Amino acid sequence: MSEYKVVFHIDEIGKWKLLLANVSNLLNAIEDKKFRIEVLANAEAVKYYDTTQDLDTDISTMEVLKDKGIEFVACNNALTANHIEKHNMLHFINIVPAGVLELVEKQSEGYAYIKP
Amino acid sequence: MSEYKVVFHIDEIGKWKLLLANVSNLLNAIEDKKFRIEVLANAEAVKYYDTTQDLDTDISTMEVLKDKGIEFVACNNALTANHIEKHNMLHFINIVPAGVLELVEKQSEGYAYIKP
Amino acid sequence: MSEYKVVFHIDEIGKWKLLLANVSNLLNAIEDKKFRIEVLANAEAVKYYDTTQDLDTDISTMEVLKDKGIEFVACNNALTANHIEKHNMLHFINIVPAGVLELVEKQSEGYAYIKP
Repeated sequence: MSEYKVVFHIDEIGKWKLLLANVSNLLNAIEDKKFRIEVLANAEAVKYYDTTQDLDTDISTMEVLKDKGIEFVACNNALTANHIEKHNMLHFINIVPAGVLELVEKQSEGYAYIKP
Repeated sequence: MSEYKVVFHIDEIGKWKLLLANVSNLLNAIEDKKFRIEVLANAEAVKYYDTTQDLDTDISTMEVLKDKGIEFVACNNALTANHIEKHNMLHFINIVPAGVLELVEKQSEGYAYIKP
Repeated sequence: MSEYKVVFHIDEIGKWKLLLANVSNLLNAIEDKKFRIEVLANAEAVKYYDTTQDLDTDISTMEVLKDKGIEFVACNNALTANHIEKHNMLHFINIVPAGVLELVEKQSEGYAYIKP
């Protein structure tokens, strides 16, 4: 494969640890190949991006992954539903209007879908 | 994209509220574009279609979505395994012989797969 | 479809019974068509392959499926993380270095993705 394209989908708070391990393992496995890897969080999973919630967020792992090129994305519908203030979020999170639409568009662009 | 094609997969009763919100959010996001969106329920999730079970089914939201063009589908293997009588089901549910085969065929037709 | 290609993803121990039923139902539904069906287990789900753990593994169903051509695969990262000795595993399990990479590669080869 000339470029690995993957979207990870998470909508449960309790799955973040597994998801971050999955992404780390994937990065190790593809070695120095090109990639576009996105983590799309919707529903309650977006709370993990909120620094004011006491969720034991593994920020150091997320920053390592972000520095390697992983994109962390939040669904804006979910931010609204969970009353999350954008200025309280980790600064490197991208926001899309609708997470489910993002999942559809990425797959139409040839991204593999993985739901840990 | 000229047409959005998506199959939502649900096999857990407890995920229906999230799934219906996901579908509603997707419909809002694609605005007036063309779409084919199917909700495929198998395993215990088909019980939600049974009007004789006391599952607090959100029929009004389902009818709104159905009227907008969303297809709700049940796996017949799951109906049998859960002893569901077809005449007790919501009248607008389509039935396929095998839910997993439906998921395979839809993806081969270019549908994105989303598992809330 | 000339050939059905499907990868089932499992990362939770509690989903094995459902997954094996899904695979059996799929095999029944595709009748005598050609297929390549793989079950990819990562995270804690690989424990199910370990004969020394008391997990009530449904070996007879797995052997029937294996004899019909289903491939059962384990993620090596997950085997290491769960301290599973390879000589204790069911003998027909294949091992890949990284389960998530396997999921990406299969989808790039046209496999449908199903997460029970």
